[in-house]
Amino acid sequence: MSSARDNVLSVGICGLGTVGRGTLNLLQSNQAELEQRLGFAVNVVHVASRSLDASTVSGVARTGTDPFEVINNPAVDVVVETIGGFDPAFDLVSQALSNGKHVVTANKALIAERGNELFPIAREHGVELLFESAVAGGIPIIKALREGLAANRINWIAGIINGTGNFILSEMTAHRRQFSDVLAEAQQLGYAEADPTFDVEGIDAAHKLTIMASIAFGIPLQFEKTYTEGISMIIPEDISYAKELGYRIKHLGIARRTSEGVEIRVHPTLIPRKLLLAHVNGVGNAIMINGDAVGSTLYNGPGAGAEATGSAVVADIIDIGRRKAAQMQGICVPELSYAHMHNNVPVLKIEDIESEYYLRIPAKDRVGVMARISTVLESQDISIEAVIQKEAVSETVPIVILTHAVLERKMNDAIKALEQLDDVTGDIMRIRVEPFHGAMG
Amino acid sequence: MSSARDNVLSVGICGLGTVGRGTLNLLQSNQAELEQRLGFAVNVVHVASRSLDASTVSGVARTGTDPFEVINNPAVDVVVETIGGFDPAFDLVSQALSNGKHVVTANKALIAERGNELFPIAREHGVELLFESAVAGGIPIIKALREGLAANRINWIAGIINGTGNFILSEMTAHRRQFSDVLAEAQQLGYAEADPTFDVEGIDAAHKLTIMASIAFGIPLQFEKTYTEGISMIIPEDISYAKELGYRIKHLGIARRTSEGVEIRVHPTLIPRKLLLAHVNGVGNAIMINGDAVGSTLYNGPGAGAEATGSAVVADIIDIGRRKAAQMQGICVPELSYAHMHNNVPVLKIEDIESEYYLRIPAKDRVGVMARISTVLESQDISIEAVIQKEAVSETVPIVILTHAVLERKMNDAIKALEQLDDVTGDIMRIRVEPFHGAMG
Repeated sequence: MSSARDNVLSVGICGLGTVGRGTLNLLQSNQAELEQRLGFAVNVVHVASRSLDASTVSGVARTGTDPFEVINNPAVDVVVETIGGFDPAFDLVSQALSNGKHVVTANKALIAERGNELFPIAREHGVELLFESAVAGGIPIIKALREGLAANRINWIAGIINGTGNFILSEMTAHRRQFSDVLAEAQQLGYAEADPTFDVEGIDAAHKLTIMASIAFGIPLQFEKTYTEGISMIIPEDISYAKELGYRIKHLGIARRTSEGVEIRVHPTLIPRKLLLAHVNGVGNAIMINGDAVGSTLYNGPGAGAEATGSAVVADIIDIGRRKAAQMQGICVPELSYAHMHNNVPVLKIEDIESEYYLRIPAKDRVGVMARISTVLESQDISIEAVIQKEAVSETVPIVILTHAVLERKMNDAIKALEQLDDVTGDIMRIRVEPFHGAMG
Repeated sequence: MSSARDNVLSVGICGLGTVGRGTLNLLQSNQAELEQRLGFAVNVVHVASRSLDASTVSGVARTGTDPFEVINNPAVDVVVETIGGFDPAFDLVSQALSNGKHVVTANKALIAERGNELFPIAREHGVELLFESAVAGGIPIIKALREGLAANRINWIAGIINGTGNFILSEMTAHRRQFSDVLAEAQQLGYAEADPTFDVEGIDAAHKLTIMASIAFGIPLQFEKTYTEGISMIIPEDISYAKELGYRIKHLGIARRTSEGVEIRVHPTLIPRKLLLAHVNGVGNAIMINGDAVGSTLYNGPGAGAEATGSAVVADIIDIGRRKAAQMQGICVPELSYAHMHNNVPVLKIEDIESEYYLRIPAKDRVGVMARISTVLESQDISIEAVIQKEAVSETVPIVILTHAVLERKMNDAIKALEQLDDVTGDIMRIRVEPFHGAMG
């Protein structure tokens, strides 16, 4: 039901929060330049927001508070969904697609958790459902994955994909501060929400990783199988020990193809200091992608913000406009996952992954403790790569161990056994270690 | 003259050097996967190389030594030009386009120096001339610039776009080695040619920068106006002083939009150590792009190599194939520069840029020398940001000065005047400094 006007692409925006407002501003401020570049105009013709103050929106033919009026407006070619959440976003997007309208969304939760229902609707109606802005804000990572690196079999993806978490870890690293202390500051600065769970527990990152894994490996979206672990348990001492061993701690989303299946997991991770990824500090995002032909490439930039995210929304709109200008029939960009590759590769349980590990073991400072710990590790075929044992300042001394790669299930058993040793005085801290062999510094 | 077969895209490769061979291998080894992803097959049907040993090519219907047979082969839809240079590459590409064949080329010299003649031929015949592999090897930077960041007015681009030069500077920095010493090693390792001029004098980087500037600013390709300065004059002491001041020295290609015009320049540059770009070491490439909406994004990866560059060639082929599959009429991706934006913004002469500067002044160790140097600088309105003056180990002492921003013309006059001071005992080393305000670390 696209309109017949040849030299105009008409956009309707649902939701005027940070991203919706950024998109509107960008389309209006760069309007002349966009038209020059593209050979057609991109006009915002309808804006709806629940609590709309119409006086804050100028140059738009129609404004209102009901987003469903936007998706039923025959003048609208492309619907921008920047409401967020599921209700009414899901109904809105599915009806917009059914109405034959292209949809551009910044809603990572919607794509990650309900995309499997939405993409078939888009396909059925011959329209696009694009979501560049849903992953890593302004970084054109979706385009890189499904077009720029399309020649590659993707081996793995590893990304810093939550700015809040990276800000917190960066501050903890630079100034040896406590998690709770930096979190409070992040909340004051507006980097973290009053309820920070979504960011610091890795749920936001898991949404983004689910989407990237689906594209990279040609599998359905499987948010429910994405393993998620937060950063609130990290203490400054862990960061210091990691430094001493040549590592930084980052909250990473990792998706990897193995011979057993696909790993999709978000958790704190020790990565070698020499990697470029280890130097990404503050609220930025960065994603490393390893493909069989290209090797490792890294993409860094702002992961949030009105204008940066708006940049990605508008890039999707431009892609739709270009296709319209080229009188394309059918869908040009492949869907979320490669349509013909949806396959049954299983997503591995976290117990079935293999990883190197950092262990911080609170232990009594007495003779033979290291030998007894080593014996337990050996019994699970875990070999030790490095140890830090400091002089005791009290009766308890932390023993820090870096292990070689082992099945997580075996590591879990080892930790259980270690915690039953009389020498061990408390919970063992366990952080996964990723050497990323072959990645560039 | 595209063939009528609907489910096959037929490729002819001209030139079987590193990149041509990498492309052939990639298309053959990932053939099944590509077909699954795209819904059509990509077949190499013709390969020509001057010194072809046909026994090293299997699974290709036709092989030979004459590339012109490839572009006249009615079975070929897409011609891959990986011969390099101008002769016969220019005639080959222009005739292929005239024959109605799409062309994918890795030839940066050809695009940068003769693209202005070739793109109109492609446009006239309704075919694509794509060149992702010509800039920064496997990094999909061309796609990022003209699609991913299409919503942005680009403010500046700054890139490490020559792996050889970056390897040399990285080694000089890490181990305080001399330029000539590391160059000899790079030649042994195969990172540098026997005649290294192309790499270390910045000509290769200037080709790539010319292409990116054209896309970013919508201007014609103007290689002849791109300023180029090499790295052979850098000594380990410059790197040490830069470190002391909080900087690293990188061989950068910089393209910037100013109110006066566009700057396009390749030269050694001091950049703040806190920038991610400062941590890109070895033979990799990295490009920072600053846009008005997105802010700064960075793209890092391998800038050369058979498979990495082949990855970019094949991405271009896939783009062409997708359009064919979507039955697109006309050209979808915008040409090299935004077709409607070719404008008359002048490229500034290097004398007309404004920059901060690092100066290393060999001076006699005597009373009042710093005052006399300051007076000369002040007479050209140059203010000093920082000074390093070490104890003299001989009668000559190097005075290192960091200046605030000033017009290059004034700095040239100041250097001339300084070199006439009786205190100054030799040539002054001058390196431009870029703070890249607002870029992320």
